[in-house]
Amino acid sequence: MSRTDVNTLGEFGLIEHLTRTFKKRQPTTVLGVGDDAAIIETGGNEQIVVSTDMLVEGIHFDFAYTPLKHLGYKAVAVNVSDICAMNARPQQITVSIAISNRFSVEALDEFYAGIYAACENYGVDLVGGDTTSSNKGLYISVTAIGRAPKGRITRRSGAKVGDLVCITGHLGSAYLGLQLLEREKQVFLANPNMQPEMKPEHKDLYAAILRPEARTDMVDLFAKNNIVPTSMIDISDGLASEIIHICKASGVGAIIEEGNVPIKQEAQVQAIDFGMDPITCALSGGEDYELLFTIDPKDVEKIRFLPDLYISGEIVAAEDGIKLHTTGGNIHEITAQGWNHFEG
Amino acid sequence: MSRTDVNTLGEFGLIEHLTRTFKKRQPTTVLGVGDDAAIIETGGNEQIVVSTDMLVEGIHFDFAYTPLKHLGYKAVAVNVSDICAMNARPQQITVSIAISNRFSVEALDEFYAGIYAACENYGVDLVGGDTTSSNKGLYISVTAIGRAPKGRITRRSGAKVGDLVCITGHLGSAYLGLQLLEREKQVFLANPNMQPEMKPEHKDLYAAILRPEARTDMVDLFAKNNIVPTSMIDISDGLASEIIHICKASGVGAIIEEGNVPIKQEAQVQAIDFGMDPITCALSGGEDYELLFTIDPKDVEKIRFLPDLYISGEIVAAEDGIKLHTTGGNIHEITAQGWNHFEG
Repeated sequence: MSRTDVNTLGEFGLIEHLTRTFKKRQPTTVLGVGDDAAIIETGGNEQIVVSTDMLVEGIHFDFAYTPLKHLGYKAVAVNVSDICAMNARPQQITVSIAISNRFSVEALDEFYAGIYAACENYGVDLVGGDTTSSNKGLYISVTAIGRAPKGRITRRSGAKVGDLVCITGHLGSAYLGLQLLEREKQVFLANPNMQPEMKPEHKDLYAAILRPEARTDMVDLFAKNNIVPTSMIDISDGLASEIIHICKASGVGAIIEEGNVPIKQEAQVQAIDFGMDPITCALSGGEDYELLFTIDPKDVEKIRFLPDLYISGEIVAAEDGIKLHTTGGNIHEITAQGWNHFEG
Repeated sequence: MSRTDVNTLGEFGLIEHLTRTFKKRQPTTVLGVGDDAAIIETGGNEQIVVSTDMLVEGIHFDFAYTPLKHLGYKAVAVNVSDICAMNARPQQITVSIAISNRFSVEALDEFYAGIYAACENYGVDLVGGDTTSSNKGLYISVTAIGRAPKGRITRRSGAKVGDLVCITGHLGSAYLGLQLLEREKQVFLANPNMQPEMKPEHKDLYAAILRPEARTDMVDLFAKNNIVPTSMIDISDGLASEIIHICKASGVGAIIEEGNVPIKQEAQVQAIDFGMDPITCALSGGEDYELLFTIDPKDVEKIRFLPDLYISGEIVAAEDGIKLHTTGGNIHEITAQGWNHFEG
């Protein structure tokens, strides 16, 4: 039998390959694999959305600098973020864990304290899960369930030429926070007597990677201002990867204005300190868990003055490609260089 | 900080401990942690049930004798079984996997062929999931979603004194199949030149452990015959553990008649061959994925002649305990000795 390495397909290629033969059988399945969440018909006025994620020690998190409580919070937040990306409100989660015998009840209490804090903050109920042992390390699988009125659910596939491309919050901070933590870890590994140095001025960068927030506030803001984005995705793998997803699903292209991509001052400073271009951190870094969405230009007045929302580009025809218009006036093609958990 | 080993609490004690402080916030959450599945209100005539399970290589399955296709099938079946235990029909699943680089695309194709076969057999749609890498081994997390009209959903907690205790199918076969496979594995490990001997007469025992079926047919049978069990659970950890769950949740006791516990002829023969009592395999073995349920005695005529259904006992008052009435005329207390994945 031939042997094809999974790395040759990449994460999205692999999912596409493995699920390509699956058919839709149930009329209640409105949307299956391929968006931030599946959509399920309820028979009532609302539809249910379901998303699931797996987090693996040594791949997605490193206990050298990840407090268990933050990890519990983040495991919930990243799944809630997928529900937000559908413009739905999260309501229930299940949490399954596989743990090695290295973990004590007290350690798990810390982890669940983080889950509890996230449940409280996002108003979701923990309704199920599974606990089992692992041979090595911690494995976390969270499923989030949300709902929204039928007409409000937003997919990746609805962007149209002329739509405005918008971003919530700020990008690149999580990536730079991770680089700082990794640097401190290397210093510590080289000399265990050196205490890791967590500088106060990097507080927001550390928080971005260790304790991200899902943008449930944006879902509320859209509802309050009577906005339904034409397409939406959460920014987990970097802006480049996500705008490509939207363009591919919608059959369009996009032009992003570098100058209008929101990047915090401290992230800009830190990027330059690392010898990196800040826009590269926004495009190719990951784990920001902000929302990338498009709106019909007729809605522009509705969002122009909303807080923490940035109009960063425009949807163009597919044949015009997916491009970055730099502050220097150049045009670059945007290629996917997001996280690939199968590499390295 | 003190350190309490997770083994001291056991799987159910640990879940209870970790989730004890969690509150219900959403009015759509009808039932949370503590049954085979959570129950969620839809706003329509039906309710949704959600269950999730994690399967870990080396803990729940062993590639020395588990074909990947069977494993894919089983991963779906055991979750569908939890949906059946709520008297609901499965409709959607999500499948997340963490894999080491030992797995090729071809190996995953085999695994997903099993998932596909199960989806086809149970009529469920694969609507989402996640694929990531693991440091070692295969981790599988499946979430199943089902639905049923509100009045038909069956919990563990509804058994009443005088109800009949019923079992579908046959018990103990999966446990004995596992023992046979483990014995062949040991022979092979001792002498790699010895081919494992899969005797044709053990076919059903191997199938019980390697490719169990969820009893969706029973959910259909109940609906067709206008039966709503008063309580139900699926038998994943052995009859003893499950009847204790029902009794504890319902605040009752039970008496099980040894002579009326269904055990296949070949399982009886094999148990004796291993020097074991067949009823012990039924009580303390696991992974049969049959249904244990109780019915109101007024429904007895409805089920008396249904296929593959056995009336095996009666619900009694809590103070009368949970007992086994042996064929020899003795009365034994039933204690939980089901699988404990944290041991060994």
